[in-house]
Amino acid sequence: TPFRIQNYRTLAYVLTTLVYLVIGAAIFDRLESTQESISYANLQTRIDVFRQQHNMSKSEFENLTRTVESRLNYRKKQWKFIGSFYYATVVLALVGYGHAIPYTKAGRAVTIAYALIGIPMWLIMIQSVGERLNSLITFVLKRIKRHFKRKREPQITAMELLTCEALLTVLTLATGSYVFHRYENWRYFDAFYYCLLTLTTIGFGDLVPMQKDDYGSIGWLYILFCIMFILTGLTIVASSGNLLILRFVETNTKRSRNERYEM
Amino acid sequence: TPFRIQNYRTLAYVLTTLVYLVIGAAIFDRLESTQESISYANLQTRIDVFRQQHNMSKSEFENLTRTVESRLNYRKKQWKFIGSFYYATVVLALVGYGHAIPYTKAGRAVTIAYALIGIPMWLIMIQSVGERLNSLITFVLKRIKRHFKRKREPQITAMELLTCEALLTVLTLATGSYVFHRYENWRYFDAFYYCLLTLTTIGFGDLVPMQKDDYGSIGWLYILFCIMFILTGLTIVASSGNLLILRFVETNTKRSRNERYEM
Ligand SMILES: [K+]
Ligand SMILES: [K+]
Repeated sequence: TPFRIQNYRTLAYVLTTLVYLVIGAAIFDRLESTQESISYANLQTRIDVFRQQHNMSKSEFENLTRTVESRLNYRKKQWKFIGSFYYATVVLALVGYGHAIPYTKAGRAVTIAYALIGIPMWLIMIQSVGERLNSLITFVLKRIKRHFKRKREPQITAMELLTCEALLTVLTLATGSYVFHRYENWRYFDAFYYCLLTLTTIGFGDLVPMQKDDYGSIGWLYILFCIMFILTGLTIVASSGNLLILRFVETNTKRSRNERYEM
Repeated sequence: TPFRIQNYRTLAYVLTTLVYLVIGAAIFDRLESTQESISYANLQTRIDVFRQQHNMSKSEFENLTRTVESRLNYRKKQWKFIGSFYYATVVLALVGYGHAIPYTKAGRAVTIAYALIGIPMWLIMIQSVGERLNSLITFVLKRIKRHFKRKREPQITAMELLTCEALLTVLTLATGSYVFHRYENWRYFDAFYYCLLTLTTIGFGDLVPMQKDDYGSIGWLYILFCIMFILTGLTIVASSGNLLILRFVETNTKRSRNERYEM
């Protein structure tokens, strides 16, 4: 019966994902555990040497740690207007680096309200712009086809559209990797890693741009780039997502239309 | 003409979002800037006192800061199997707290590949389970209606379904807030703030559960809860999203079907 099929399909998805998580856990454990232990041991040595040099007790060191910890939160003032704008963008885009954290209870409460209103707004905006982007690409592709193939009414396939989206994504990643490498002095690989973690909206926050005090004479242009990278980058990803995931959802919805609200 | 209308609609969405970002920037600047300056000044005093007490030069303090910074990365070993599982969950769910960060280049490369394969898998899984959850709720609601209203074929409206989803979301938030308050010693408000930031997938990482060394005799149950909170919480949000956002996208797609790939 159809509802059984849908249940088993869902169960298969869940099990696949769980297996994938277990495999991931095993791999990351293998990759990171050893390095973590080594670094941890090195650090202990460094702390012991330091404590001897400065003739410091364990509790004094703990106290010091707490002071330095708070200092880390203030490496740069984050909440001037442009920083707050970046914060708002990072919240709405669901990236959430955590480089700027509201300290006040009011800041936290407003963040909650701001996110609950803003996120649907953002999703609608991104989806709408992504859809327009697809239209633009189709328009341009048709022009090109008309010119070279001399057809009156050239058709654009979903595959051609997706290829263009993929190229645009690669272009965004390449541009981002280059610019962040240049202005943040990150290695190319790290800049690429940052771009990918941002465009997937994972946003670990281990690498965050705009944290230096000075970016030279064209610093304002770089700051504009940082914000536009999130806005346009996510739009390009959204327009591919528009085609890919929504197509899947549509298929899935159609397939289970008869069984939709049945068990 | 229809394409003009769609372009203007998109432009209106973009402008609305930009205005909302500017308003947000102004509010967060206002809320956080003053507190930031005060805390920063307090901290400077604390550092000066500390340096005097320990007869420490500025560069020595900088060196110390760097040592303590690395120490913060190792507050707890994150990469044992269960920690790696939590990491994998946090990556696929797009939450990305950043509490555990791959140190090795291999770890970063594998994270990229893992995310690119896993995220579509995750989205399909979440969407499928969410759809099944909607079916289950409809089934239960029909049973209840049949029992109390004695109708043969009771109908369930989208509104009734959404109300149930909303209730489920509130229940998840309440349960989460209570459990995290109890086991992490967070204030209720902070636990609630954590739950909301996680279920929206923003995931700042300022509050992350499972960072203490010991959670008592039923610690394993609590760890299970932490992981299940992300898995089931996001499913419940996804099934509401299924109804709300996808309905919007469908309407939008239908509305612009004629104009879709036109400019
Ligand atoms: K995130
Ligand atoms: K995040």
